[in-house]
Amino acid sequence: MSKDIVQIFDTTLRDGEQVPGCKLDMEQKLVIAERLDQLGVNIIEAGFPISSPGDFKSVEAIGKLVKNATVCGLTRAVKKDIEVAAEALKYAVKPRIHTGIGTSDSHIKFKFNSNRDAIIERAIDAVSYAKTFVEDVEFYAEDAGRTDNDFLARVCEAAIKAGATVLNIPDTTGYCLPEEYGAKMKYLMENVKGIHKAILSCHCHNDLGLATANSIAGVINGARQIECTINGIGERAGNTSLEEVVMILRQHPDLKLDTTVNSKLLYDTSLMVSNKMGMLVQPNKAIVGANAFAHSSGIHQDGVIKNRETYEIMDPADVGVTESSIVLTARSGRAALAYRAKNVGYELTKIQLDEVYSEFLKLADRKKEILDGDIHEIIEMSNINLVRVS
Amino acid sequence: MSKDIVQIFDTTLRDGEQVPGCKLDMEQKLVIAERLDQLGVNIIEAGFPISSPGDFKSVEAIGKLVKNATVCGLTRAVKKDIEVAAEALKYAVKPRIHTGIGTSDSHIKFKFNSNRDAIIERAIDAVSYAKTFVEDVEFYAEDAGRTDNDFLARVCEAAIKAGATVLNIPDTTGYCLPEEYGAKMKYLMENVKGIHKAILSCHCHNDLGLATANSIAGVINGARQIECTINGIGERAGNTSLEEVVMILRQHPDLKLDTTVNSKLLYDTSLMVSNKMGMLVQPNKAIVGANAFAHSSGIHQDGVIKNRETYEIMDPADVGVTESSIVLTARSGRAALAYRAKNVGYELTKIQLDEVYSEFLKLADRKKEILDGDIHEIIEMSNINLVRVS
Repeated sequence: MSKDIVQIFDTTLRDGEQVPGCKLDMEQKLVIAERLDQLGVNIIEAGFPISSPGDFKSVEAIGKLVKNATVCGLTRAVKKDIEVAAEALKYAVKPRIHTGIGTSDSHIKFKFNSNRDAIIERAIDAVSYAKTFVEDVEFYAEDAGRTDNDFLARVCEAAIKAGATVLNIPDTTGYCLPEEYGAKMKYLMENVKGIHKAILSCHCHNDLGLATANSIAGVINGARQIECTINGIGERAGNTSLEEVVMILRQHPDLKLDTTVNSKLLYDTSLMVSNKMGMLVQPNKAIVGANAFAHSSGIHQDGVIKNRETYEIMDPADVGVTESSIVLTARSGRAALAYRAKNVGYELTKIQLDEVYSEFLKLADRKKEILDGDIHEIIEMSNINLVRVS
Repeated sequence: MSKDIVQIFDTTLRDGEQVPGCKLDMEQKLVIAERLDQLGVNIIEAGFPISSPGDFKSVEAIGKLVKNATVCGLTRAVKKDIEVAAEALKYAVKPRIHTGIGTSDSHIKFKFNSNRDAIIERAIDAVSYAKTFVEDVEFYAEDAGRTDNDFLARVCEAAIKAGATVLNIPDTTGYCLPEEYGAKMKYLMENVKGIHKAILSCHCHNDLGLATANSIAGVINGARQIECTINGIGERAGNTSLEEVVMILRQHPDLKLDTTVNSKLLYDTSLMVSNKMGMLVQPNKAIVGANAFAHSSGIHQDGVIKNRETYEIMDPADVGVTESSIVLTARSGRAALAYRAKNVGYELTKIQLDEVYSEFLKLADRKKEILDGDIHEIIEMSNINLVRVS
């Protein structure tokens, strides 16, 4: 079955790094950029060159370092921004300038004190000017999520005519529902003249917890790029999580979409970014959280021990996690206790297990988690005669 | 505009508490249960009474304590489980027994070594038996997400005939896409005889980051209950986040759906659960993360200072967050610096701001975040003559 490739545009070093507490020094950025290139992302957004001298230098150094991915720099629709970005990208093998402007009525009125026609003019000017420096120009229609589709289509058409290769449709405020964001992409696919000359890109924010679902709705409806970050970091509630969209496409072959990401590096990359930024990943984070593959309830553990597929839809090894764990708590059943006891060397008969299990429950009601050391103690305290077999 | 109420079924104390590291003692559970009742959830799943003596006592105590919400206890489709749950719930004003069995082929074969007809019999027996103890019986079709719709409809019909008031359709493994989960609910609404006698419930897991989107797809297609937890805690990558689904319905009035939750208590409740369980909430968690309302990039800060609505789709005060912050980093622009400088007492002219901003950038490139104390220092180091006005 042939699958379309969805481009993965990683913005960990731009939309991610601009977050409170996430600032990286240049050396850290280079290590992460190199890893993103190994991971197989297609585009690395390396920074916003005009924003600070440090950012300029980082974009330049990443451009020199990265061998495979396109390296991208952000700009506003401002000449100086574009010139500085082009300068920062001069060593990149595959440079991309990412320029754009707000297109929603709220942005046009409050941010630019402007009007629709003037905004289209500025969009055309920015894309045309960026084209004088690089071939690959991505245009963003900021707050596209709240821009009406008819005007958005006009903006996209103008940007394509001016030479844009990618059209970024950001749900800047994270407000869209998946159906609505998908419908927006479908509308653009059907109503923008010349749409075959460019690809549509999903850039979603997670303010309502919907960034991943919106991005997937986007590619189902014709977009072919997803902008995302490792661990879903980013402004406010963050951006789309790279690891989530990659694994959704991988686990849902019926969508006939895939990425070039080597999923086995996901867990390690998550750890690297989390450590370097000092940004914690919550244990219940999908794909890369510490508990993402941990089973603790008795019903679930029993099922997993009988057949892993009962409760697991992906093999933890596919995302680089060595094994899913059977964690013992007061909610664990006999099967889990027997499994873990066996792991530390005790083969329990059914009668022995009953005996040990009641001791286990007493301790488990007092402790958060029963560790291997506790198992030895429980077995000693149980009224059974048992010798370790390993 | 009249809105349908979606019941919020909180399972923080059952599906949440069974997670590695999340175990609570009885006193902690009672404090949380009381808060959930104040928060305005409709059902509190208090535990799984047969799983341990501690859990039994907690369910009993929560049943005594809670004044408004229905208190629910989980069981397998096993007589003893149901008897113990009924016993634990005997003091509850509004008791509910939650019973059920796996219905996917994988569960039927590997977990129960059974067949479809026998599973339906067990479902009927469990619901009928639970009905002898309480009026309100919820039936779960475990792994409904991977159960074919035709068989699932048969199971639902049988459970309704046996007296079930709620039918829980869990995506136990977190595999469904929103369209698919929504279509499942639609199918059941259209094909289950007697469906008007019960309500359908969404119980989604977050293994692929889609629990929230799936639950919303569920209620858009006719379900009227969402099972969720504070901070989205739960087995593996967790359950649907209560705060996310509540705010999505609140912020999207066109859906004509709402809940009875007092959203102003969301942030405090999140903190309480996180602290009591020792389960961190990542800064980029939607609605309740530390950064959920923090703006740091220059472009965004400038927009927010001009008009909050430019980048904010909800008022932080509506979820109990006192104010959204303008965080100063190397990515911040002049407007943000002027805003924060004014907050600590400096009114900068445009020329002064230029001067101070270049000093600011030098320091910000070295520091992760510029604090109020740093602002005084930067202004002293700048070559301007300025006196604090406040």
